[in-house]
Amino acid sequence: MNRPETPSRLMPIPDVQAARDDRQLAIERVGIKGLRYPMPFADEGSTSQSTIATCNVYVTLQEDQKGTHMSRLVELLEERAAATAEPLTIAGLRGFAEQLVARLHAPGGRIEIAFPYFIRKTAPVSGVASLLDFDVQLTAELAAGTFTSTVAISAPVTSLCPCSKEISAYGAHNQRSHITIDAVTDGMAIEELIAVAESSASCEVYGLLKRPDEKFVTEMAYDNPKFVEDLVRDVAVALDRDPRVGAYTVEAENFESIHNHSAFAKLSRPAVVQEVA
Amino acid sequence: MNRPETPSRLMPIPDVQAARDDRQLAIERVGIKGLRYPMPFADEGSTSQSTIATCNVYVTLQEDQKGTHMSRLVELLEERAAATAEPLTIAGLRGFAEQLVARLHAPGGRIEIAFPYFIRKTAPVSGVASLLDFDVQLTAELAAGTFTSTVAISAPVTSLCPCSKEISAYGAHNQRSHITIDAVTDGMAIEELIAVAESSASCEVYGLLKRPDEKFVTEMAYDNPKFVEDLVRDVAVALDRDPRVGAYTVEAENFESIHNHSAFAKLSRPAVVQEVA
Amino acid sequence: MNRPETPSRLMPIPDVQAARDDRQLAIERVGIKGLRYPMPFADEGSTSQSTIATCNVYVTLQEDQKGTHMSRLVELLEERAAATAEPLTIAGLRGFAEQLVARLHAPGGRIEIAFPYFIRKTAPVSGVASLLDFDVQLTAELAAGTFTSTVAISAPVTSLCPCSKEISAYGAHNQRSHITIDAVTDGMAIEELIAVAESSASCEVYGLLKRPDEKFVTEMAYDNPKFVEDLVRDVAVALDRDPRVGAYTVEAENFESIHNHSAFAKLSRPAVVQEVA
Amino acid sequence: MNRPETPSRLMPIPDVQAARDDRQLAIERVGIKGLRYPMPFADEGSTSQSTIATCNVYVTLQEDQKGTHMSRLVELLEERAAATAEPLTIAGLRGFAEQLVARLHAPGGRIEIAFPYFIRKTAPVSGVASLLDFDVQLTAELAAGTFTSTVAISAPVTSLCPCSKEISAYGAHNQRSHITIDAVTDGMAIEELIAVAESSASCEVYGLLKRPDEKFVTEMAYDNPKFVEDLVRDVAVALDRDPRVGAYTVEAENFESIHNHSAFAKLSRPAVVQEVA
Repeated sequence: MNRPETPSRLMPIPDVQAARDDRQLAIERVGIKGLRYPMPFADEGSTSQSTIATCNVYVTLQEDQKGTHMSRLVELLEERAAATAEPLTIAGLRGFAEQLVARLHAPGGRIEIAFPYFIRKTAPVSGVASLLDFDVQLTAELAAGTFTSTVAISAPVTSLCPCSKEISAYGAHNQRSHITIDAVTDGMAIEELIAVAESSASCEVYGLLKRPDEKFVTEMAYDNPKFVEDLVRDVAVALDRDPRVGAYTVEAENFESIHNHSAFAKLSRPAVVQEVA
Repeated sequence: MNRPETPSRLMPIPDVQAARDDRQLAIERVGIKGLRYPMPFADEGSTSQSTIATCNVYVTLQEDQKGTHMSRLVELLEERAAATAEPLTIAGLRGFAEQLVARLHAPGGRIEIAFPYFIRKTAPVSGVASLLDFDVQLTAELAAGTFTSTVAISAPVTSLCPCSKEISAYGAHNQRSHITIDAVTDGMAIEELIAVAESSASCEVYGLLKRPDEKFVTEMAYDNPKFVEDLVRDVAVALDRDPRVGAYTVEAENFESIHNHSAFAKLSRPAVVQEVA
Repeated sequence: MNRPETPSRLMPIPDVQAARDDRQLAIERVGIKGLRYPMPFADEGSTSQSTIATCNVYVTLQEDQKGTHMSRLVELLEERAAATAEPLTIAGLRGFAEQLVARLHAPGGRIEIAFPYFIRKTAPVSGVASLLDFDVQLTAELAAGTFTSTVAISAPVTSLCPCSKEISAYGAHNQRSHITIDAVTDGMAIEELIAVAESSASCEVYGLLKRPDEKFVTEMAYDNPKFVEDLVRDVAVALDRDPRVGAYTVEAENFESIHNHSAFAKLSRPAVVQEVA
Repeated sequence: MNRPETPSRLMPIPDVQAARDDRQLAIERVGIKGLRYPMPFADEGSTSQSTIATCNVYVTLQEDQKGTHMSRLVELLEERAAATAEPLTIAGLRGFAEQLVARLHAPGGRIEIAFPYFIRKTAPVSGVASLLDFDVQLTAELAAGTFTSTVAISAPVTSLCPCSKEISAYGAHNQRSHITIDAVTDGMAIEELIAVAESSASCEVYGLLKRPDEKFVTEMAYDNPKFVEDLVRDVAVALDRDPRVGAYTVEAENFESIHNHSAFAKLSRPAVVQEVA
């Protein structure tokens, strides 16, 4: 249904945004930023979970148009949050982006949706279950008729320093690290990307650990030391093996336990590589 | 049911936390901080909504005990997030706190649960509906056998400067402000506290406004100028009239549009006043 | 000197803030929040260092006055940042607070000044020097004719888990922790408070460590395991021994390397204890 | 001077980082992130001011090397913070980057230095002076023998909505906005970039305003309404006129006073355009 911007029953109000602009400068992204919305999300092959998303929705603005209609961008999110709305999915991002550019009559559009995603993990020895939160960001973009989307996950993990282990008579400094993967994927679940990050660390982290589990993760991290460089390389090796993965960027940040700063590494594979494959 | 910390089928592992401590210093709060958990919440008189809470759970530790059992604190949250769990309510905070101190055999305990809460608002002229997000924090404490709890809400609003309006030939600087109310309440809904904050501002804010609505809120703010001092005083006047409200603290912060700093005000009514009344 | 709010050479502009208020509600704090200012600071017994402070400056507002004069609060900070200004000192906080209430004709006032403070530390084996940053907050308050001030420091340190060490065949999980001390002190330097925090941890952290240093701190942390409870108790024991320390609050937060949440403890000694002593 | 990693007077400690790596994956950035350092900075044509920088220093790591030597990266910052060090300048970034890759024997390197920068502004009517803080980030990169650097500034300003002004009988919603310019520049001062941002807004903001100034800025903003689209376009028009500016990205974010979200726009000119010119 075509919703008129200014219902005639209300009053004639000028549409300032629709005025002509003479600066001859198109704007690559204009829209709304930082809206929080409750939104059900269903991962590939999983049942839906309720989450709360922080959303940015932008369109491209032609050089001759003064402004975009911000309220229509909010309407799109509002429809997504309706009780009857389908859950957000990775596969559904293309339709969302197409709806955006159609509704705004825009040459292009971009959607960024970030939310915490929960996985119920099982402690390695006791088997007790608990939820762990991961940050996820989905990005979808339609530009010049081409659609691209990426899935980004950030996984908290444990890293244990190989140098510290090697040079010390006992012990080794370790810390919480964040491994972030931002990738073009085809049919890959968020849980699978998170599993790649977790399996590349010295050890996974958990919400709930009983004492036998704590012994297990302590010894596993010590048996499995990794530099920040190892974290990004081991993730890259795993992603390179998976034909469902295209371009990617991997980052790792260690919140060093012996310093007040982080160790950081970043490794990317460009889109070109994927096309060759 | 008494859950053994170290199931015998696993291995005998010493309970270091249960050891004796000789420093003769009780610890007023020890526990877990910053856990994110999906959690249904039902406001007084409303249906439940899914939210994602950031939780801190603490107990008091007696002077002769070396440490608390952190994993039991996580278990309490885990139970709350189970599919079969009852929604969190303000009325249920006492039971939650009692369960905490019983489970930990602790002389006292404290729970802090913060989450975004969504209200579907109706635009003032067009009547279009949209969600708006508010920050809420519930606090529950059992200490020396006495239970206390507070409900805190933070509402984004518009403030328009009376001085700027008065001294200028036209226009008036205005900006987004946050009004925060932290109160001891008896049977009062979160939506009611938010309504007190919103009705004390120059104007409410909305997620979605059509042009006739934008005209309305612009003029309403101009007709209704408020200093940061007025915001906290008008909230206080409203709270003072409500017999369901005990001790409270009101804060307002204006993210000034003519400066790079905030204007801020804070006004409290101590618990004593309530008891006299 | 009495600075007129509206110089006559400009124009007659009404003073809206000075109007009478009829709500009969005094405001305990009103003022400016979040101003960043470059400000030299000189610790007790140290030479001055340049820092950048984030400042909140508030006054108490009588019940019959509509608003405070925010611009005078900014002027006070502006004077502190002048090239000829004396460095900020802990001892000088009383004079600053007295100047505030005099300038605003206010019954009370409060100043909060937060800044990073740098100490050049020497690595334990190689002796290489490097700066480490600590967060400091000074608070000064004049209320009902009584002056109080506190000094708060937050020190990054290493904590190593005694339970993990005890139950594991090798290794022990460790992590960065923050120890925060907020205390009423008399003639005590910031560096001394930081030294109390650092010496209560499993090990200090450093900006720059060579390999022999890394071996040293790894082994020292392993030799010196501490629960979050031990951190706050050991700080409290040290503060209790120092006659220059009055009321205090100690907090410790461990950014657990095996979880995605923190362990936290808090221990306070009320002001009353000091007066008895 | 060649500083040995492990002085022989200490002990023979293996250099784990220097080991060979077989995964055949170069790492584009590895290093240290989030170090705070006091650092004098001198803008083009200005005297030096003390600031506190947050620094990231990275190198490229060849595919056959297991790890980089993080401590050497800290040493570089340590030398910059020495009492005798020259102030940081935009012109000096190339030398800093060359020093980095030489010290680490790295094929490339990248430095990111962010800090608050203060400008003493004069109020438009009263002439009172006060400092205003701006966020600045300098980036320098050496890759494949090519040096590039950018200067980014973020300026707080006032924006007033043209639509709200046009459709309302009186008043207009306005708010604080951030205009960010990230540009390749040649001999352009930070103060000049900030001036471009401020002059493109509805009005500048100030730390200290007296009442005649508040009247002035209120009326000026009302006389000068701008959409978020206008902010980025007007900055772009000004940058396009300046031959010292190469590739740039301009962003504007309005912290809407009538919503709880931001309006946002982004406009870039690629490097190619500059080379054509």
